[in-house]
Amino acid sequence: MSETRTGTTPHARATDDPDAGTVPRPRPGGRSARVRAAVHRAVAELLTEGPAEHLTMPAIAARAGVHPTTVYRRWGTLGELLAAVAASRFSGDLVVPDTGSLRGDLEQWTADLATDLTDPDSIAIIRAALSSGTEGGCACTTERQEQLASMLDRERSRGGAAPTVERALDALLAPVYYRALFTPAPGTPDWARSLVDTLLPRPA
Amino acid sequence: MSETRTGTTPHARATDDPDAGTVPRPRPGGRSARVRAAVHRAVAELLTEGPAEHLTMPAIAARAGVHPTTVYRRWGTLGELLAAVAASRFSGDLVVPDTGSLRGDLEQWTADLATDLTDPDSIAIIRAALSSGTEGGCACTTERQEQLASMLDRERSRGGAAPTVERALDALLAPVYYRALFTPAPGTPDWARSLVDTLLPRPA
Repeated sequence: MSETRTGTTPHARATDDPDAGTVPRPRPGGRSARVRAAVHRAVAELLTEGPAEHLTMPAIAARAGVHPTTVYRRWGTLGELLAAVAASRFSGDLVVPDTGSLRGDLEQWTADLATDLTDPDSIAIIRAALSSGTEGGCACTTERQEQLASMLDRERSRGGAAPTVERALDALLAPVYYRALFTPAPGTPDWARSLVDTLLPRPA
Repeated sequence: MSETRTGTTPHARATDDPDAGTVPRPRPGGRSARVRAAVHRAVAELLTEGPAEHLTMPAIAARAGVHPTTVYRRWGTLGELLAAVAASRFSGDLVVPDTGSLRGDLEQWTADLATDLTDPDSIAIIRAALSSGTEGGCACTTERQEQLASMLDRERSRGGAAPTVERALDALLAPVYYRALFTPAPGTPDWARSLVDTLLPRPA
């Protein structure tokens, strides 16, 4: 995008960027993206500021500066909106490592996951999405499950043995989420790394 | 309380108790217990009927037939109330088995736990309690952790070897809760039983 910095003609800035204050000629598609960004941001802000019980569709619309009807029409229910925010929040934020060994990959990924779940903002959106039902829970971890599957598949494609993704979910993902949500202290990266020993046979 | 049913004096009915019509002479301790029961029941009913976002302190008070001030004064916040309801709901509902072996105890207990979490009412209160913060999460599983610890301690007192309670939480409790909350299908009792193989060495 650095090339746009040299442009000086006004039309070059006609973009659907959420920083609309500097954009002279927004297009219709741009409004949709800006509404989405404003609503997602409103959810994040309200979750930071107070208890989840204050997170209602009208409150979100007011904070985002859009009409409540817009929010209901686009997302339907609070549950669907929170699932969308969770899916967006947890999409692409964790990189699948490539250390050359399944053990190394899983140790780094599980430690990164535990670190990510020490972030109060991450936990707040998970708690809110979970309260809205199964859909919200799935939205929080679908990408995580896909990442685990990709590391296990890579090991198999190298000719190595790998446990099933279900077993990896039980051994790695589940304890990290359980500690973050149900106990006063989230797991440490070292503890998370040690979980891999319960999944893979010890190296000879 | 049966003795109070014989009372017939009108002044005894001057009370704001929800069951006031049928209880002529409530005692102070009795009123407190009835308010608690009515409020707990109101939470359960509202969770069954609609999305968690409708679960507010005023809505709970209205359903329970008590003044909102009564609810705020006694429980403080929605989070504290939900933690109390969760602790009460999950107290004493699962029996610690005594099969004569640690493996047998853990297999039965984990299968019972998984079965309990197929109950939509159980899941609804866990989701709601979790949304209110760490306190709510702890309230859902504190008794479970104590039950696990008691089975492990019993094995040690028999002279057997047992894993730490932390390891048992990671291997048994965490996957059962993870599946119930984050995936579309809760774990089956057979799957739950098989988790014990990941915690204890295989019998010779």
